[in-house]
This record gives sequence, C-alpha cells and structure tokens, in this order.
Amino acid sequence: MLGAGVDIGGSYIKAGLVEIQSGRIIDQCSVPFPRGQRAEVVWDRTANCVTELVDRQRLMMNDLVSVGVALPGTLNPEKTQVIHAYNLDFHNTEVRRPLEERFPGIPLSLLNDGDAATLAEHRFGVLKGTRTAVLLTLGTGVGGGLILNGQLFGGGLGNGVEIGHMTLRYDAEKHVCGNPGCVEMYCSASSLVSGMEGVSPREVIEGIRNEDPAMFGILERYTDALSSALVSIVNLLDPEVIALGGGVSNAGEPLLEATSRKLREKSFFTAEYRIVQASMGNEAGMVGAAIAHQCL
Amino acid sequence: MLGAGVDIGGSYIKAGLVEIQSGRIIDQCSVPFPRGQRAEVVWDRTANCVTELVDRQRLMMNDLVSVGVALPGTLNPEKTQVIHAYNLDFHNTEVRRPLEERFPGIPLSLLNDGDAATLAEHRFGVLKGTRTAVLLTLGTGVGGGLILNGQLFGGGLGNGVEIGHMTLRYDAEKHVCGNPGCVEMYCSASSLVSGMEGVSPREVIEGIRNEDPAMFGILERYTDALSSALVSIVNLLDPEVIALGGGVSNAGEPLLEATSRKLREKSFFTAEYRIVQASMGNEAGMVGAAIAHQCL
Repeated sequence: MLGAGVDIGGSYIKAGLVEIQSGRIIDQCSVPFPRGQRAEVVWDRTANCVTELVDRQRLMMNDLVSVGVALPGTLNPEKTQVIHAYNLDFHNTEVRRPLEERFPGIPLSLLNDGDAATLAEHRFGVLKGTRTAVLLTLGTGVGGGLILNGQLFGGGLGNGVEIGHMTLRYDAEKHVCGNPGCVEMYCSASSLVSGMEGVSPREVIEGIRNEDPAMFGILERYTDALSSALVSIVNLLDPEVIALGGGVSNAGEPLLEATSRKLREKSFFTAEYRIVQASMGNEAGMVGAAIAHQCL
Repeated sequence: MLGAGVDIGGSYIKAGLVEIQSGRIIDQCSVPFPRGQRAEVVWDRTANCVTELVDRQRLMMNDLVSVGVALPGTLNPEKTQVIHAYNLDFHNTEVRRPLEERFPGIPLSLLNDGDAATLAEHRFGVLKGTRTAVLLTLGTGVGGGLILNGQLFGGGLGNGVEIGHMTLRYDAEKHVCGNPGCVEMYCSASSLVSGMEGVSPREVIEGIRNEDPAMFGILERYTDALSSALVSIVNLLDPEVIALGGGVSNAGEPLLEATSRKLREKSFFTAEYRIVQASMGNEAGMVGAAIAHQCL
C-alpha cells in the first residue's frame, strides 16, 4: 500500500511516496514554496509534485490509498480551511476543496505539520507504543503534537495543539501569536543566536553537538528556557516520553543532557519520563501525512 | 447509596456523608488538623469523624459503599503513599494501610484533593458532560484537575496533575516545588496581597467582587498572571470549559470577566471555550472523594 505525503513549509513543498505499513519513503521530490503568489499556485505545485512521483514510479494516481497534506498552521475543526499559517501567509484559506479537485477520488487528509510528525514518531519512531507522549519540534517556529490515550490528540474543541505558544515569561512583550513570552520566543532556532551577529543557528547547533566550549553559555541560556517549557508539560500531563525534533534537536546529546538535568530539578514528579531525540528527522511530516487517513 | 468523603486540609479534616447518586451531603463534621503530630493522629481523627457521622445517622459502617479520602498532595501511582503534601508536612507517608485498618472491608479510595474536586464538578457541577475540561483551584495553593477523554486524567505515568506548578516566569526565583516562577507564585490567594500590609486576601476578594475601584490595580495584576497561566492550558489542550474554584474564585464576575477578556487576547485559538466559576464550593473535595470509587 502506497500513500502520498506532502509537507508544505515556508521554504519548500516536499512530497513523498510512502509505504504505509513500514513508513519507508520510496521516492520524494521538492519544489520551492511560491512565496507571495496566490494559494492556487501552491495547490498546483503540490499536485504536480505528487503527479511527478506517481509517473516516475510508473503508477496511476488511483494506486494511492491516500494523499495527506501537512501544513505549518492551524486548521479549522472541520479541516477544510487553514485559519492561520503565518509562515505561508495563509489566513482563512480554503484547502480541502482545491486539493480535492486536484486529487479526485483519493482519500485526502489535511493536518498540522507538528501533528503529522507526531503521528510518524508514534507509528514508527521514538513514541512507538506510548499512551501519553509529546513531540516538540524546535525549528524556525516551535510546534509539536500530543499523544493522549494512545492516539494523536487534536484538541478538545478540535482546534489542535499549539505547544510552542504556551507561556514561558508572562510579563514579556507580546508575540505575534498574541501570547506575551510564549515558548517560541525563547526556544526557536533563531533564539539561539539572539543578540549575536555573524553566527547562524546552524553553526551554534553544530558547536553544541561538538561540545565547543564557546557554545556553553548559549546552551545554558537555551536549556534554562527549554527545560521550563517542558516542566509545564511534565507537571500537567506526566508523559512517558518527550521527544525533541526540529533543527535544534540536531545538537544531540549535550542538548538532551542539559535539558534533562534541569527538567529533573524543576519538575514536580521525579518520575521515569524519558527525554529523547526524535528519530524520523525531516521526513516525519511526509510520513505522518501519508498515514494520517488511517490514524485520524 | 451513601459514601463517606473526607477532605484533609492543612487547617481542618472535613468529612461528609454523601448520597452517591445526587452528590448531596446529608451530614458533615470537621475537626482541626493536628499540626505537628504523628500521622497516626490524623488517621485516628479521620476515622473518628466518619464514625461520628455514621452514629449520628444511626447507620452501621457497613452501610457505606465507599470511603474516599482527598489529600492536598501527590500520591504514588499505586495510591498507597503520599509522596509530598507540603501543607500537611507528609513526605513518603503511608496512607492506604493505616486507613484500611480503620475502615476494614469498605472500598477505600485515596486521591489528590484537586482531583476530587474535579470529579465532583464533572459529575454534578459545571464540568458535567465535558470531554476535555480543567478545574483550577485558586487558594492557599493552586491546584486542580483535568478531564480528558471524558474522564479524570491521573497523569500519563500515574503521578497526577500539578497545574499549579506549570511555568509562568521561567527566570524568576525557584519555588519550593522546584520550578522557578510557577503558577502558584503568582496566582495563589496570598499573591493577591503580595507587597501589601494590613490587608487580607479575603478583604481583597470581597472588594473585587463589589467592584471597589481601589482593587482595580490588584485585579489587573492578578489576571495578567492568571490569564497567562490559562493560555498555556488553552493552547495545549483546547478545552471546552475552564472552571475556577478555591477562595479567589469568590471574587466572581469581575474576576471572570477580566480573566476571560485577557485570555482571548492571548490565546492562539479564538474558540468557544467557556470560563466559569466552579459550582461545588468547599464541598467539592468531600463529594469527589465519596464518589471516587465509581470513577477511578
């Protein structure tokens, strides 16, 4: 069984042909996100990407059991519109209808990209077998998803989960999301280099992974914030596993060690939760989108 | 069907005889909490309270379908010990065995007091019929409980839920719970009067309820913090209803209005969640303890 999983981001639209049972991507392609152009161009490019993969593998569109599309934003509870996807500049944008027109007769799933990654980690990755778990993606933005009761949690009212916009410092300036001092302000990739010049988040992440002493101060400051974000989740949900994904998680063991140590000092429960690096990498969104029709 | 519900607090041990189907308390009594004395004295007083009620109603102990005991602390996942109940000075204290000895043959439930109040609100109060909801109790401490999937959520690893120790200001001083800048530091009853002399939380709460203009600044400051605590819950769980209980909630409509208005400005989802005052008052803990054997 093959499904197509599409991960739409602010830089690229990525599509993969995914073996549903194994989560293996057998072919993939990506095209630039058409910034500043009409949404219809995005849907055309999305359809073209999937068509190209299907053609390359000498398949027919009807061979696909599903098409799933992951978006970096909030969908309405009916999953027909994107309410806000700031990185795409989509606001109250129709999604289901234009995509159904382009994939007639194929089951279509639309979901948040953090949710897609969480589905992938839960089915094939480090959250496998968990009943209460969290994925936090630390990238340009901070997102993620929740597993509750052994299933992806879509929000009590169906609006979704916005882990990156929980509160870290309530008397700070207001973030674009509306919440002053939200997690994203202190835990995104760019916050790693805030106040610094001439150094990229990627260089800092690399430096942390290699235990470069010059990065020690940055790691301390960043994990002070990240561990306090995680303590909110731990004290509220007492999860079995917390997985860290996104670009910052590539800092690896030094990041995990410092975060875990501080979290244990701060959290109410001295429990046996585990903090691990997410294992599905950049493919998590595509894989999760492709399997979403089975999970949601 | 009658059950006994006991609510052990740092000032009083309260016991009630509760009609299980209706949640009505048909008789109750309370005795001072024996501060500074051995735990055995607490269990003796607890047993005496229940015995007195049973005698007064000309019942036999075996007429009770349950005894439930709510405690202001964290129990171990097996619900045999209190790990920490700071207000009672209980740490790794055996609870189940000494209470089973005093109530032989009667089903015994032990639970956190915030969980007990949440059960009562979910069965009989403002959380009735909800699948995803939160009770926040704003008193000497800040506690509460979660309804997920239509049931009381006891934590993914069985450790419980500590809403009052989520993060509000991560770079503040460390709280006794271990978490710097936790919700309790800014949202407890005493935080209403922090930095003030000669005025009690009760007077401030009364003043807010009566819309005393002198209380406006306090209300602003308090609801700045409270709304940011709630935004973490809303952005993570997207609940249907948030109920506010505990002494501070007696400030009533002015508190609800200011909190609700600020929360809507800060939260990611412009959803139809409701913020309401809890309806079971001081009896919630007793009622919830009495019905716990049916719910847990």
